[in-house]
Amino acid sequence: MLEFMDVMPSEVILAESPESDRATLDRATLHASLGAAAMESMNLLNEIAGQYPEAISFAAGRPYEGFYDVAQVHEYLRAFCAYLRVERGMTDRQVARTLFQYGDTKGIITELVARNLAVDEGIEVDPGSVVVTVGCQEAMFLVLRALRAGGGDVLLAPRPTYVGLTGAALLADLPVVGVATGPGGIDLDDLVVELRLAREAGRRVRACYVTPDFANPMGVSMDLSARRRLLDIAVAENILLLEDNAYGLFHDGPEGPGETGRPPTLKALDRDKRVVYLGSFAKTGVPGARVGFAVADQRVADGAGGSGLFADELSKIKSMLTVNTSPIAQAVIGGKLLSNDCSMVAANRPETAIYRRNMRQVLDGLTKRLGDAADVSWNVPTGGFFVVLTVPFTVDDDLLEQAAGRFGVLFTPMHHFFGTTAGFRQLRLSISTLEPAQIDEGLDRLTALITERLADVAR
Amino acid sequence: MLEFMDVMPSEVILAESPESDRATLDRATLHASLGAAAMESMNLLNEIAGQYPEAISFAAGRPYEGFYDVAQVHEYLRAFCAYLRVERGMTDRQVARTLFQYGDTKGIITELVARNLAVDEGIEVDPGSVVVTVGCQEAMFLVLRALRAGGGDVLLAPRPTYVGLTGAALLADLPVVGVATGPGGIDLDDLVVELRLAREAGRRVRACYVTPDFANPMGVSMDLSARRRLLDIAVAENILLLEDNAYGLFHDGPEGPGETGRPPTLKALDRDKRVVYLGSFAKTGVPGARVGFAVADQRVADGAGGSGLFADELSKIKSMLTVNTSPIAQAVIGGKLLSNDCSMVAANRPETAIYRRNMRQVLDGLTKRLGDAADVSWNVPTGGFFVVLTVPFTVDDDLLEQAAGRFGVLFTPMHHFFGTTAGFRQLRLSISTLEPAQIDEGLDRLTALITERLADVAR
Repeated sequence: MLEFMDVMPSEVILAESPESDRATLDRATLHASLGAAAMESMNLLNEIAGQYPEAISFAAGRPYEGFYDVAQVHEYLRAFCAYLRVERGMTDRQVARTLFQYGDTKGIITELVARNLAVDEGIEVDPGSVVVTVGCQEAMFLVLRALRAGGGDVLLAPRPTYVGLTGAALLADLPVVGVATGPGGIDLDDLVVELRLAREAGRRVRACYVTPDFANPMGVSMDLSARRRLLDIAVAENILLLEDNAYGLFHDGPEGPGETGRPPTLKALDRDKRVVYLGSFAKTGVPGARVGFAVADQRVADGAGGSGLFADELSKIKSMLTVNTSPIAQAVIGGKLLSNDCSMVAANRPETAIYRRNMRQVLDGLTKRLGDAADVSWNVPTGGFFVVLTVPFTVDDDLLEQAAGRFGVLFTPMHHFFGTTAGFRQLRLSISTLEPAQIDEGLDRLTALITERLADVAR
Repeated sequence: MLEFMDVMPSEVILAESPESDRATLDRATLHASLGAAAMESMNLLNEIAGQYPEAISFAAGRPYEGFYDVAQVHEYLRAFCAYLRVERGMTDRQVARTLFQYGDTKGIITELVARNLAVDEGIEVDPGSVVVTVGCQEAMFLVLRALRAGGGDVLLAPRPTYVGLTGAALLADLPVVGVATGPGGIDLDDLVVELRLAREAGRRVRACYVTPDFANPMGVSMDLSARRRLLDIAVAENILLLEDNAYGLFHDGPEGPGETGRPPTLKALDRDKRVVYLGSFAKTGVPGARVGFAVADQRVADGAGGSGLFADELSKIKSMLTVNTSPIAQAVIGGKLLSNDCSMVAANRPETAIYRRNMRQVLDGLTKRLGDAADVSWNVPTGGFFVVLTVPFTVDDDLLEQAAGRFGVLFTPMHHFFGTTAGFRQLRLSISTLEPAQIDEGLDRLTALITERLADVAR
């Protein structure tokens, strides 16, 4: 099955370290991803945050944690076990076995995920096309691993993009071709240009990754007409779309997708099965359950006249990566869904109110403090966790260290979302975890930093 | 970082299916692993098992489930939360955050894992060299992904070998060179031969995977002198050893490794940090928690004069694969450890007694029924879950279907552990999940099948 490519000379992989007879590995002999900037970003940012525990953090993209209570874990588990007994007719022994033993690779809550998608997103899918994963991150890797067959394959993705996408692509040896991002999300004209350039260069474009709602890191969203045009491009150019929807529920309009609220997801509009949907329960469920999923209802022809679902191929890869997602963790998410009529919109009303309040307070606070500052600007997202500031000075990790150490405030330098090749005049503020007093104090500190830098620039 | 290799012509990846305008993917355009026999094995075996629910199964490698009770999950979670409060001084809010939020990529139970290794295996490791993973399967993939830098890299592994190892290697595009297995486990003379042949062919041998205790599928173990010689070979030939120890605790001797019980693990004997230890709590903890770990205390030089641990490199890969192992799932395993003085030997006394009883009953039952049968033989493991029978007729999936349908008994054809290139006269019996009456009835059914086949052969 596997062939030897790029045969290298036989090499010693372990060099003796000077101080002992114990072996030392040389990182240059390890997988190329381990030298990539994107793989270091998270560690580096966490390290700085860890050194300044008193700093107010606009850096963390975590969900609001003010309502967490360990009793909920027990309640959710009980709710799921009750469902197994009542709705699925299991004996106590079968319930125990379902939670304790190895389980179906695709997961034990695929039915509940399908109901959730119908209730919250108007997406109708067969549970058989759902693969429950260890967070959305594993779903990304499964899809990229499946799609990367040879060295000419490439993925399109907006630039800047979520670091986790860059990392998963590195692990799958799949190069990412960046597509420009505008105020309305991914730039569709540039997408077509980049796609054709890649093809002219002999690449096979497998798919385009996109987050239509409140994309990390920009916080921008696509409107309905852009979504329809993107789907048309996918059909015309014969590519898949990988839709990441981690933040869609946290919007500043009426509940539910549609005319009056946010636009429907790509998957809800997908008539041609061009969209693989990447779902996350990290923000809407419980991050600590590490449960996400992929919806992959594309047919796959096996070359022998038969066919199955793309979900089945992802499931095969998953069986060799994590075997199955912890049924106990799935039960926690399943129980939360069951306790809320399968609606995460309903489950997250208190959190959504907080995110709206925080976003408004941050945007108003920026206007009040920096509305008159020359060359300082920011976007105005209608939901999600993120706002991006543009400033007339360099924003790098040194500035972050100074912000943390001298001013007591943390943010995320945007260059981390550009693979450290651009974005050096932007910073991302996350609004999700803070209380009102922290936001005011944090914005004061950030303003002090920015004011000092502006004075330096003016000098 | 990534280079384009094997540039392919631009290709259409989606062919229109005949019956509709919906797209169909062609499996030939997907990653090569998806065409490999090893990736199908589990599905195929599960499918046959699913069709014959009344059959007595010697196929399932699952742990014994007779003691499972959902109340244990709640108890383990409470025990772990009490430990966070008392031993680690956390407030209720911090406890909730630890379980609910994103956590340290390396895990929240690395201390407990280190204690467990000291108590049960006499292995002394720093918690910083432990990476908690989504089962041992993820640990395998992390290590193989890290070690596979180029197309010339290869891994050595015993033949036959655990299907999960083959699968993880396929996902990492890492070819596996098979090493013969004898009654004392991996054949060390053949190992040296294969290693040198691979190097002469221009391959870079990264490591050798090995399960010294009751290896799946053969059930064979290495004695102390073989373990010492394997470590010497690793030093002399400058390779890493990947030690899988999923079954070591289930042995038929005094408790604990040492002179009187089973021999120590390779990691306990490892003076030169040649061993990456792959741990599993699936058999000793709760399979449904999906918690395993890697111990990777090798130093890695970064080329700039600095160095870190191999565990840190694995952690970076993990951050882009699954972010972190579910803290809730880790808490379940942590709680089980805390409830048993960090000893899984102690926690598994009832199960170990059952495995011993079952192994004895199967071996005695085979002797009674087939002791005089010409050309039928089996090995006599001193622990673990597996016994392998050798017969003078073909053992393939057709035979398994007949065994299931006509005789009501299931086993695992050994060819699945040889990548369907050998092993067609062997079958694996797993003894872990059965009750005594099922074993007797199952062996009667198996004997009826074998007797019929022997008569066919004699004709």
